[in-house]
Amino acid sequence: MDNRPIGVFDSGLGGLTVVRELLDLLPNERIIYLGDTGRVPYGSRSRSTILKYARQDIDFLTTFDIKAIMVACGTVSTTVLDLVQAEYNLPILGVAEAASKAAAAATRNQKIGLIGTQASIHSGTYERIIRKENPNAQIYSVPCPLFVPLVENGHYAKGDQLVELTVKEYLTELKTISIDTLILGCTHYPLLMEAIDAFFGSHVTLISTGAQGALHLKQELVRRDALAAGYPGRIADCHYYVTDSTDNFSRLATIFLGRTVKGFVEQVVIDE
Amino acid sequence: MDNRPIGVFDSGLGGLTVVRELLDLLPNERIIYLGDTGRVPYGSRSRSTILKYARQDIDFLTTFDIKAIMVACGTVSTTVLDLVQAEYNLPILGVAEAASKAAAAATRNQKIGLIGTQASIHSGTYERIIRKENPNAQIYSVPCPLFVPLVENGHYAKGDQLVELTVKEYLTELKTISIDTLILGCTHYPLLMEAIDAFFGSHVTLISTGAQGALHLKQELVRRDALAAGYPGRIADCHYYVTDSTDNFSRLATIFLGRTVKGFVEQVVIDE
Repeated sequence: MDNRPIGVFDSGLGGLTVVRELLDLLPNERIIYLGDTGRVPYGSRSRSTILKYARQDIDFLTTFDIKAIMVACGTVSTTVLDLVQAEYNLPILGVAEAASKAAAAATRNQKIGLIGTQASIHSGTYERIIRKENPNAQIYSVPCPLFVPLVENGHYAKGDQLVELTVKEYLTELKTISIDTLILGCTHYPLLMEAIDAFFGSHVTLISTGAQGALHLKQELVRRDALAAGYPGRIADCHYYVTDSTDNFSRLATIFLGRTVKGFVEQVVIDE
Repeated sequence: MDNRPIGVFDSGLGGLTVVRELLDLLPNERIIYLGDTGRVPYGSRSRSTILKYARQDIDFLTTFDIKAIMVACGTVSTTVLDLVQAEYNLPILGVAEAASKAAAAATRNQKIGLIGTQASIHSGTYERIIRKENPNAQIYSVPCPLFVPLVENGHYAKGDQLVELTVKEYLTELKTISIDTLILGCTHYPLLMEAIDAFFGSHVTLISTGAQGALHLKQELVRRDALAAGYPGRIADCHYYVTDSTDNFSRLATIFLGRTVKGFVEQVVIDE
């Protein structure tokens, strides 16, 4: 048993889709969330910049007495996770590993699609893990840089013309190739799940990195006997920190969390 | 005569559309350009974050012996320009003032449209300047947050389906209102000029903030007798600094400059 909170961070608020999964899976846990909204997005930046930002994110979270960190950022999870895991003395889990294993196990025709940010795709992390689990798998990767700005500007519903056109532009090749499994390699993408599912006509298994990452964290806490104690009526609670103004927090957070935001929100400085 | 260079900065590389104008208008000048690519975009951030970033940008540029600063960032020009102008002891010009005056003079039916980032629009800066010049003008503002990611991902050509759909979504109301003048209040937007012009059917005068800002700077240098000396065969030269990797610099810079990039490019740290 370990009642200390879990630290979760993302470049922005997309990582709240992972928090959403954690709140459902681990209702006894306290969560401290950091969204680096002052410097979002990470996905188009270089590896050295991503490393610098990830260290500052983790340094902030470790000022709290936390028991583990969930990297709810697909970009950090795929580009610099091994480096920060080696530097800090606490469990740091990313969202890529569990999703890669789930995809490797789910495919029937050995054709797996992967969508994510430019940096996530170029890292080769998903490919490496999938091939280790399933050497026969073929991986077809497509960076989808416009999905994040679309979601952040309210364009994610099935039937939204801009969403449908962008989905068609990015995913037609994967449809032609007849993938049967698709990794949604960015925490914003669960919002686009319905539109993507409709495009593929339900013939493709969609693997959300957030849901798989949350499951992985739960397994890890169970293995370490580090779950928080529950008591009747207790519900998961979450404190939110952001690096830009909290003004727009509620609107976006509600979208990603899929529920009303409870718990306090505060702006912090982490780059000094 | 003043042979010191001009400092130019933007949140990213969009400001190179202003450099393009400067290179044409002021071929004898040396330009030092800073693109804060490690923290782009500014347009969705809060005023306090924008102020902090703008100060760091200017602090970097003033490490060179420059004679003036051109703020080639619509967001900084409209949200915190007066604050930084008061703090630094050198001429700092933004891109909003000249464009506002040009629009106020250009309109015939007194209906002016304004497009830009969320922060630029909300600042009210364009409205304030236009109303002072032309009290009868009506200003209709539309934030267009998807234009920047579209341009940065290569979607800007007339005929591009995503561009046409987004232009239609953002600008249909302005067309219905029958504006006769439109301020392109973001340095990325000149790339979309053809698509926007086609949408309005050439009935609308498009005012580029970059072109107007460059003209304003030239007038200011003439007024101060601070133009650089020319000599036969001299061409404008430019040094480029960015805060993220220089890897993608050439591809994007070529788009915004409309010419092959000459002059060196270096990555620098400005946030410490």
